[in-house]
Amino acid sequence: MKQSQLFTKTQKQAPKDEVSRNAQLLIRAGFINKEMAGAYSYLPLGLSVLNKISNIIREEMNAVGGQEVFMTVLQPKETWEKTGRWSDKVVDNWFKTSLKNGGELGLGFTHEESLAKIMKNYIYSYKDLPVFIYQIQEKFRNEERAKSGLMRGREFFMKDLYSFSLTKEEHELFYEKMKDVYMKVFDRLGMKEKTYVTISSGGSFSKYSYEFQTLSEAGEDTIYIIDKNKKIAVNKQDFNDEIIADFNLNLNKKDLVQEKSIEVGDIYSLGFKYSEAFNLTYKDKDGKDQFVFMGSYGMSPSRLMGAIVELNNDENGIIWPEAMAPFKIHLISLGQNEEAQKIYEELEKNNIEVLYDDREISAGEKFADSDLIGIPYRIVVSKKSLENGGAEIKKRNEKESRIVKIKDIAKELK
Amino acid sequence: MKQSQLFTKTQKQAPKDEVSRNAQLLIRAGFINKEMAGAYSYLPLGLSVLNKISNIIREEMNAVGGQEVFMTVLQPKETWEKTGRWSDKVVDNWFKTSLKNGGELGLGFTHEESLAKIMKNYIYSYKDLPVFIYQIQEKFRNEERAKSGLMRGREFFMKDLYSFSLTKEEHELFYEKMKDVYMKVFDRLGMKEKTYVTISSGGSFSKYSYEFQTLSEAGEDTIYIIDKNKKIAVNKQDFNDEIIADFNLNLNKKDLVQEKSIEVGDIYSLGFKYSEAFNLTYKDKDGKDQFVFMGSYGMSPSRLMGAIVELNNDENGIIWPEAMAPFKIHLISLGQNEEAQKIYEELEKNNIEVLYDDREISAGEKFADSDLIGIPYRIVVSKKSLENGGAEIKKRNEKESRIVKIKDIAKELK
Repeated sequence: MKQSQLFTKTQKQAPKDEVSRNAQLLIRAGFINKEMAGAYSYLPLGLSVLNKISNIIREEMNAVGGQEVFMTVLQPKETWEKTGRWSDKVVDNWFKTSLKNGGELGLGFTHEESLAKIMKNYIYSYKDLPVFIYQIQEKFRNEERAKSGLMRGREFFMKDLYSFSLTKEEHELFYEKMKDVYMKVFDRLGMKEKTYVTISSGGSFSKYSYEFQTLSEAGEDTIYIIDKNKKIAVNKQDFNDEIIADFNLNLNKKDLVQEKSIEVGDIYSLGFKYSEAFNLTYKDKDGKDQFVFMGSYGMSPSRLMGAIVELNNDENGIIWPEAMAPFKIHLISLGQNEEAQKIYEELEKNNIEVLYDDREISAGEKFADSDLIGIPYRIVVSKKSLENGGAEIKKRNEKESRIVKIKDIAKELK
Repeated sequence: MKQSQLFTKTQKQAPKDEVSRNAQLLIRAGFINKEMAGAYSYLPLGLSVLNKISNIIREEMNAVGGQEVFMTVLQPKETWEKTGRWSDKVVDNWFKTSLKNGGELGLGFTHEESLAKIMKNYIYSYKDLPVFIYQIQEKFRNEERAKSGLMRGREFFMKDLYSFSLTKEEHELFYEKMKDVYMKVFDRLGMKEKTYVTISSGGSFSKYSYEFQTLSEAGEDTIYIIDKNKKIAVNKQDFNDEIIADFNLNLNKKDLVQEKSIEVGDIYSLGFKYSEAFNLTYKDKDGKDQFVFMGSYGMSPSRLMGAIVELNNDENGIIWPEAMAPFKIHLISLGQNEEAQKIYEELEKNNIEVLYDDREISAGEKFADSDLIGIPYRIVVSKKSLENGGAEIKKRNEKESRIVKIKDIAKELK
């Protein structure tokens, strides 16, 4: 795409009320627009990144047999009364509204109830299980405070997968598998090195659940690192002697290292809570009714986008890993539009994603914008580079550039 | 995909309160689930259709230079007070809610205000125009009645494009172009023959606007057909002598043919209404501030999905046109799973989308399901078909099948 066509421009300043680093950079670089605290619109560059993150997650969910759906935001009160979660005393972050012709509604902050109800139409026999269902869509949470940019939204994107299994044993096989699937996603997003499987409190059914926590000073959580090699940690707020005993943790409390971290995913064993509430049963081989065993697996593409920016930036801007960068190459012409145009066409012909800065502004402005936006490779075509035999290529996270012959660029970057 | 893996099953009956034909069929065939009147969840088959329709629209919006964004559902009151549209007396179908820490919010039923506000960050000079921006996402309208299935939703998908032009003249060139773009989309969706460009009242800025109306008994609108060849009509509720004069319509009122129709799109000249409210201006060549001239262009992928079902069904079920069918081929094995499996693998290898009915149920049930789901091509592998030299191929909308050699199937259907 030609940058002269892209409607967004970079900005020197983020809005004064924006305190988070990820949102400041993403707003200044033109990826998102702040509508209010905790609610951001995605502009072309930002939507591209969000879609790439979502598609990585989607591929991994499909690979374990996940079937994709899209449930409604509008949730009737009656559905949530079945589990007691309609009450504002039980769930303190509902957005609620009402129908013109009567009836109270909430905006989905999660979808266990909604899906358990749907599955009553489709689960009858043991032959129908296990089944894994997910969606990627917006959720709404009426947060009192929302100061972490994309990392704590009132309106945000979520991938929520729900598993429906015959037995606790069958569930546990899938639950363990999902730990690896999640780590594979974090690996593809370039976050694996800093991400810990973290023991935390279990919610209503089981004693423990697992979170995935990525080390970052921008995080709202604190973890104790148990095993740096195996990437195992415990959430500080849930840490106690019982955990040490239950997990056979061989540690000296005095030696524990404490780190700030971002929660980038969580997986829960839900047991029979929702299947009992909605009478979601199947007939076993003996024709007897049994409750379905459920699990849920959350991961927010928009929070991940914020976390990736927190992990990958310097004083000049964002440094996108290639997997979710809006473009692979930032092609910059310094008064050499004819040569640059040739390179641009050659890259497009080879299906290499390129943003071509064809604007009539100064070299300094172009370099500053390029560093702020953070595309992985920068190619500069200038009088000097042509005299040196081609174009200058530099990675965003490296200082030194090198000259590549124009005819070799597409081949080299493919 | 193997049908034994697909979690949805067909149902004999739709919910009793569902009166629309499109929703009845889509629910029974397992494409959608009814959460309440006007709000449906999309199950795997339905999400696939919705995505295919959305992608056709997306391609055509990109082809005219549209840049895709994703704006927030949550809309602060302050934004909408600028145009007076926060008032329930002006807009009678808001869903409203409020923030825990104070502040009223509405759920976006459209996004003119939101985008005009965003564009203030990006439009400065005449060089920044024209620009065309769109999104595909859910909208929320608190409809008193919602009885037309996917065709009138309280929560529904919308493609809304907004144009920002230098002048009325520049706007009108794009506005006229969009009429053709819309007809191209309807052509790709197999609806062009029945779709009329329809003159209707213009909203707040211009005297007239255009709707796109598709003939169907299931429609909520009525149009007068002005020119059957040129596909021009007038919305009955806006028809009067002034229209006859303004458009030079050469007609005899007594001869007018009246038809029921579904509104499948609308395009508006917004003029300066929103740019004045948000002081959205640009500097012209003389350095003088000028208001931006806006237009909006709506089209709902979910309503289109409902309309397509209304236009394409028979007593046995849906008949999907190929462009948005969830699969191209429904492969049915009647006790010949070994041969069918070979065909399945061959089709998948050739990237031909196939649903393979490998379930152990009767031939009658398989055929009934196949007709209800409505995939364009049906391939049956049975003892009889193999004796006759291959598999039976039949289109969903044809009665007669023919035998094709197994080795030729992929080649023939590619």
